Amino acid sequence: MAESADTPATPGHSPVDLDPAYREAVVDLLAVIAYGEISAFERLAEDAKLAPTVADKVDLATMASLELAKVHPLHDRLRELGADPFVAMAPFRTPIEEFHRHTAPADWFEGLVKAYVGDGLANDFYREIAAYLDPATRDLVVAAMEEGGHAAFVVERVRAAIADDGRLGGRLALWGRRLMGEALTQAQRVAADRESLAALLAGGVDRPGLDLAAMGRLFSRLTERHMERMAELGLEA
Amino acid sequence: MAESADTPATPGHSPVDLDPAYREAVVDLLAVIAYGEISAFERLAEDAKLAPTVADKVDLATMASLELAKVHPLHDRLRELGADPFVAMAPFRTPIEEFHRHTAPADWFEGLVKAYVGDGLANDFYREIAAYLDPATRDLVVAAMEEGGHAAFVVERVRAAIADDGRLGGRLALWGRRLMGEALTQAQRVAADRESLAALLAGGVDRPGLDLAAMGRLFSRLTERHMERMAELGLEA
Repeated sequence: MAESADTPATPGHSPVDLDPAYREAVVDLLAVIAYGEISAFERLAEDAKLAPTVADKVDLATMASLELAKVHPLHDRLRELGADPFVAMAPFRTPIEEFHRHTAPADWFEGLVKAYVGDGLANDFYREIAAYLDPATRDLVVAAMEEGGHAAFVVERVRAAIADDGRLGGRLALWGRRLMGEALTQAQRVAADRESLAALLAGGVDRPGLDLAAMGRLFSRLTERHMERMAELGLEA
Repeated sequence: MAESADTPATPGHSPVDLDPAYREAVVDLLAVIAYGEISAFERLAEDAKLAPTVADKVDLATMASLELAKVHPLHDRLRELGADPFVAMAPFRTPIEEFHRHTAPADWFEGLVKAYVGDGLANDFYREIAAYLDPATRDLVVAAMEEGGHAAFVVERVRAAIADDGRLGGRLALWGRRLMGEALTQAQRVAADRESLAALLAGGVDRPGLDLAAMGRLFSRLTERHMERMAELGLEA
């Protein structure tokens, strides 16, 4: 049934509050995050097959399920904004699949590092963007970034493995650098293709944004946190 | 840290309430269900790759995640009973993997029918067994069988596809019979290997059980419900 036209709008949630350019940017942002979660589910479920034990498999499968659970509220909000979630996600399919195609883990440990470092990087980036959003959208984006601490098992497994095998540590350190490089490549591609997202970061007449210097600082923060994550795993960044 | 010995036992939940043979049967039962859910997650996540659209993929991935979510309470209860969930699940790995090896879907629709018919059959079987359990274990088993109505999308997709293509209906009807045959083969194998589970169904001095005639009726009920499910999908059983 169609929604009644006189249903009161939730304050701060109504699509009519948003100017069209900003609405378009929010649709793009929620869609890219949602498709990223779907893709993360697929990749983690695939990597779970490489698990050396059933316990490890359940841990990675649980991470996969948690990613997927975040898709539904993002889709709900896209529908509230008058967008079809699957149409909205379509432009992001290629860059996200390309990222995964270029970073297919060769083994269980590369899969673990990718889960930890890749998702961490994406989360940091979206949290940074969240600062430029209206409160309702910001809360939704920040909630989608919560990982429930389940990734802690990755740190434990990777540290134990490299303690046993120093060469693995060297290989995984290179792998971490490659993940960062591929993520930046695809993020630039998205920014070039989707003007609305670039405009969101640049700000507007009535919204603060990032100038080039601020953008530079954003990237140093992302790089710094990437290095912290690598260090948590016991890897040189 | 070890649990304090003077922690009060939850009434009806304490492992000391259970006689050793019954406890062993409950451990086996919870373990086979839990491994079945893990395996269902893997198979549904794999089948989701065959999805013709991203929306279908999300639906199947959601079914996968719901299966996995049921694993954690089963594992918690196994631990309460003093069992290591991964040790307890080990004996069931081969029969469940064999079932999936012999019923690998050739395409998206075989995957959908398997998800619907296979999980339905397993759920019916475990619900029947639940009648012979103590109330706390019964509630846990019944909760693990709830599917949240998400499988409804399968009915819609399969009916639409066979309306378009009569030959697909014939092939999927044969597929449904094969799923039932393989499920019975592996269930018999488990019953032969795990005396505790067979004894659970047969009853004990202080517990009612199934005689041969009752076992026969149980199998006719399972077959009947399988045929009902095939009919819901628009397939001849």
